[in-house]
Amino acid sequence: MTDKISKNNNVTWFNGYVSREDREKLHGHNGALIWFTGLSASGKSTIAHMVEKLLHRRGCSTYVFDGDNVRHGLCSDLTFRPEDRAENIRRIGEMVKLFVDAGMIVLTAFISPYRKDRRKVRSLLKDGQFLEVYVECPPEVCATRDQKGIYAKAKAGVIKEFTGISAPYEAPENPELVIRSYKEDASEAANRVIKLIEQCGLIK
Amino acid sequence: MTDKISKNNNVTWFNGYVSREDREKLHGHNGALIWFTGLSASGKSTIAHMVEKLLHRRGCSTYVFDGDNVRHGLCSDLTFRPEDRAENIRRIGEMVKLFVDAGMIVLTAFISPYRKDRRKVRSLLKDGQFLEVYVECPPEVCATRDQKGIYAKAKAGVIKEFTGISAPYEAPENPELVIRSYKEDASEAANRVIKLIEQCGLIK
Repeated sequence: MTDKISKNNNVTWFNGYVSREDREKLHGHNGALIWFTGLSASGKSTIAHMVEKLLHRRGCSTYVFDGDNVRHGLCSDLTFRPEDRAENIRRIGEMVKLFVDAGMIVLTAFISPYRKDRRKVRSLLKDGQFLEVYVECPPEVCATRDQKGIYAKAKAGVIKEFTGISAPYEAPENPELVIRSYKEDASEAANRVIKLIEQCGLIK
Repeated sequence: MTDKISKNNNVTWFNGYVSREDREKLHGHNGALIWFTGLSASGKSTIAHMVEKLLHRRGCSTYVFDGDNVRHGLCSDLTFRPEDRAENIRRIGEMVKLFVDAGMIVLTAFISPYRKDRRKVRSLLKDGQFLEVYVECPPEVCATRDQKGIYAKAKAGVIKEFTGISAPYEAPENPELVIRSYKEDASEAANRVIKLIEQCGLIK
């Protein structure tokens, strides 16, 4: 913790200053972003929440972002058109960058279908602060898990521009981890994410 | 910490679930938003950073938002026109709501000139989670403190729609605290904010 003192108008302004490092020390771990990407109903959100639970048990400060807490709030003005999807991911990236600066371990579960958009988020963070986890699952399998019936609606053309059906999904080329959720158990996958976070030295 | 278990596709999905209360327990204090409002160079940011430092020393998880970390990132596409100012505050409100849900004490230092916009942010949070702090200071005094010379530029008409000079500032009607930074020392003001946070039961 350092102090910045400036003088102007004959008044000494004392700017208390708490850095990312100070906050990380308080939390006992580094700030980081675990970015899950994959089709709708591939299991991103389930695994992210399981990882959060495991991290919380270890005393880590965590937060999960998904469509539920972003699409109705920060990005409520955006559609699913490509340019709005890009803006959606841009805003999320800028927001989670600040959460990482706050010394938190952030887990995000967004389809985030475009490589370019994910690359931009990675570029906002320092090396080692961004871990991309690709949750791979064929659309046919996702469709069988889909409780809301959105895959059926997409196939019938009722929902337009649906990723994996009528809109593209660009799989990551060099993700830090691949989870094959069509043959891998979610709790096993969550443990592999924890192992990755440990290996990267983000938690002890 | 509760568990949500759902069954579909013959697979048991176990959704680990960490609540705001769990995160607050971990941090040892409640999540809250301390919203500083006032003219440019009124001292909002200085006081907010001093409060953060005092809270951090007491082991609180904190974060300060101001123009520096928001206008260049999340809101880099917005101008200073009234409709963009409203969108700026809307996005900040939605973002900090999630920080509060993450169990952090958030301090924001934005001019936020319109009552309507500030009221909207208040409405996003629960009673007692939002504390409005009005940093009152006459524009003439702010101008003498202004290191960047933006008041002079605003008076000369070089900068348009400058709050307090050529754009309106709507003072809060019922703020939780008023700081008169033209006659009150910043460190004294910061201590009064801490006292308010204590009185509201947000920290012990």
